[in-house]
Amino acid sequence: MSIATDPYKDQLVPSSEIEHRINCLRSEMARHGLGATLIIYRPNYFYFSGTSQNAILYIPLEKDPILFVRRDMDRAQEESPLLRVLPLQSLKQLPDVIESHAGTIPQILGVELDVLPAQEFFRFQEVFRGVEFKNSSPVIMKCRMKKTAFEIEQIKKAARIAYEVYEAGKNLLQLGMREIEFGALFEMEAKRRGHEGVIRMRGLNYEGYSWHILSGPSGSIVSDADTPAGGSGLSPAFPTGAGWRKIQAHEPILVDFAICCNGYISDQSRIYSIGELPEKFLKAYKVCREIENLVLKGARPGVKSEDVFLIANRLAFELGYEDGFLGLPGKKAKFVGHGIGLEANEIPVLGVGQEYPLEAGVVLAIEPKIVFPGEGVVGIENMYLIKEEGYEKLTLIDDEIIQV
Amino acid sequence: MSIATDPYKDQLVPSSEIEHRINCLRSEMARHGLGATLIIYRPNYFYFSGTSQNAILYIPLEKDPILFVRRDMDRAQEESPLLRVLPLQSLKQLPDVIESHAGTIPQILGVELDVLPAQEFFRFQEVFRGVEFKNSSPVIMKCRMKKTAFEIEQIKKAARIAYEVYEAGKNLLQLGMREIEFGALFEMEAKRRGHEGVIRMRGLNYEGYSWHILSGPSGSIVSDADTPAGGSGLSPAFPTGAGWRKIQAHEPILVDFAICCNGYISDQSRIYSIGELPEKFLKAYKVCREIENLVLKGARPGVKSEDVFLIANRLAFELGYEDGFLGLPGKKAKFVGHGIGLEANEIPVLGVGQEYPLEAGVVLAIEPKIVFPGEGVVGIENMYLIKEEGYEKLTLIDDEIIQV
Repeated sequence: MSIATDPYKDQLVPSSEIEHRINCLRSEMARHGLGATLIIYRPNYFYFSGTSQNAILYIPLEKDPILFVRRDMDRAQEESPLLRVLPLQSLKQLPDVIESHAGTIPQILGVELDVLPAQEFFRFQEVFRGVEFKNSSPVIMKCRMKKTAFEIEQIKKAARIAYEVYEAGKNLLQLGMREIEFGALFEMEAKRRGHEGVIRMRGLNYEGYSWHILSGPSGSIVSDADTPAGGSGLSPAFPTGAGWRKIQAHEPILVDFAICCNGYISDQSRIYSIGELPEKFLKAYKVCREIENLVLKGARPGVKSEDVFLIANRLAFELGYEDGFLGLPGKKAKFVGHGIGLEANEIPVLGVGQEYPLEAGVVLAIEPKIVFPGEGVVGIENMYLIKEEGYEKLTLIDDEIIQV
Repeated sequence: MSIATDPYKDQLVPSSEIEHRINCLRSEMARHGLGATLIIYRPNYFYFSGTSQNAILYIPLEKDPILFVRRDMDRAQEESPLLRVLPLQSLKQLPDVIESHAGTIPQILGVELDVLPAQEFFRFQEVFRGVEFKNSSPVIMKCRMKKTAFEIEQIKKAARIAYEVYEAGKNLLQLGMREIEFGALFEMEAKRRGHEGVIRMRGLNYEGYSWHILSGPSGSIVSDADTPAGGSGLSPAFPTGAGWRKIQAHEPILVDFAICCNGYISDQSRIYSIGELPEKFLKAYKVCREIENLVLKGARPGVKSEDVFLIANRLAFELGYEDGFLGLPGKKAKFVGHGIGLEANEIPVLGVGQEYPLEAGVVLAIEPKIVFPGEGVVGIENMYLIKEEGYEKLTLIDDEIIQV
């Protein structure tokens, strides 16, 4: 019953990595007055423990962390470098086991209030009587925001798969094919190379997936998602992404197809077209690339995230794209770039009201897009690692429109 | 900016359907003392409004429901038969708008406490001062449990796609192919036919997806999921479902591949094999089919859900499969069947501690499986509509092992 074959084991999170991450969390906890943190949300406890088996992770300021495992205990022990991995039968056990292994339970406990369901929170209040709970998510996301070398490697593996899949896409695209058919072929090419298929996103009702294939007019269909171009989706139940429309020649086909590898996401967009695109799309595409360059110049450590967004907006407006930049009037997306890692919607967000200053070590997906009502969307999305000096481009796909 | 092409519009939820569902909810609300319900969770407000645009749905006992839409307002209006569809800028507006359209706000408001994040719940408490909140999920799930004729039609559409995909699977399976490659091809065949790709599951950290392809020994790898056979998955980040293992001849290949169509899920499992299977797997497969028949005889309206589970267990034990039935000792799944609809883990659950009596109109996915440590899993999963008299089988795939 040992875990799988080698490619799985090659992806285990190293012990040094876990130690580094927990140290980061502890110093943030200390700064925010948290005596310990109970981590319930899967991407978070995977980040700090190396396993995403069903578990709860307890991290105190000083003593050893304890990973409480509901299922599967054997795999959690194999996968996590943590020393204390214990089975969990019932939440009621938690206080006693914590006290016997890690001393007194502190007065202030962190817990992820932005994702933990209310009913489960009440249960924690019952079990840990007299303890004050504070939202630990800002502290956790601050640690997760700065990527380690190991994490950059994982994103690069996903970006490598993305490169291969977008290359393969050149031979898959055919006139008259439905958006969802093109998406299905993309998905197949990605998954056979190790794409994990699910794109994690934080928040109730957020559903992440890859097949955002929007051809011609579909590119101006607005959806529930806060993006410039939502697409129709297949039904009112899944009203975003690839739809039933048959792809035509000489129209922009936006392929915003994220790839997940060992939990890490590579997020990118390119425009495909069958035959030449009309001049106005080519011109708008060039403008998107100019805006990308300007955003990159502006996205320096210390700069407030929103300021970078405002710079992008200003240039788009100056160049005459006030109506279409980041969506149609009244329906615009509120950001031009976002952090990326274990989830597709991480901080920092280059968007409205985002006060957070950028730091070296963040990975940004920058995605300027311009929408033409009833005609389509053009734009580009690349990932960059922001460094103290300069940046490193993580996306490997050529920047040009992919004309077949 | 109108929504997509015809196959999308053909799937809109009819007005009579929405009316019926809201009537059901209102009578349950009245029985449970809820004056109104605020519906925040997407599968729920899609069920009662016909749209899954970003929204909050307010349903009082008597006055018209109000759908508050964050994004996209135009599509929500096109998709929902509800009469009052209003834009929502901020939660703060809610009480005033509700009072002006639907009269006084009742003293007891229902809200989905099992999925609503704690922080968002606190926000509702702030906005609706003095109101008592009660968990509305049991009431909502009770309505959703009994499927209407329209819903059965949607499940049948998904089951038809499943039939075609499992047929196509016969020509896709090849010796030495990795599990994830087979899964990728299945996914492609499903998606090009309209499979929506995401399998919704209720609860924090639940992640539903289709590619559960477990070959030989992978079928006895336990995962975080409460299922007889979890599989390795591709990495510690996604430790369930298809892995990297290369498929061999003469071993059972479990394909538990769910299909989603207009939001409704068709859930089924079959065993493929390359060449003949050893006798012990064939024998165990026959036992699974016997158990399925016994479960079907037992799953009558009025019978307690857990009792059906106990019947299944008893037969498996009598026939000598105590060790392997529903998983290995100490790691067994706690159910032999579950409700299915907009989510893959609906009530009723034929499982441990499930008091709920079965009713006519529920759709059950019944999935007896037997695990052989280190060797694999065999079993079957079919969906049935339970009727007052008898049942209707919804799965169209032939019941035999699919040998290629």
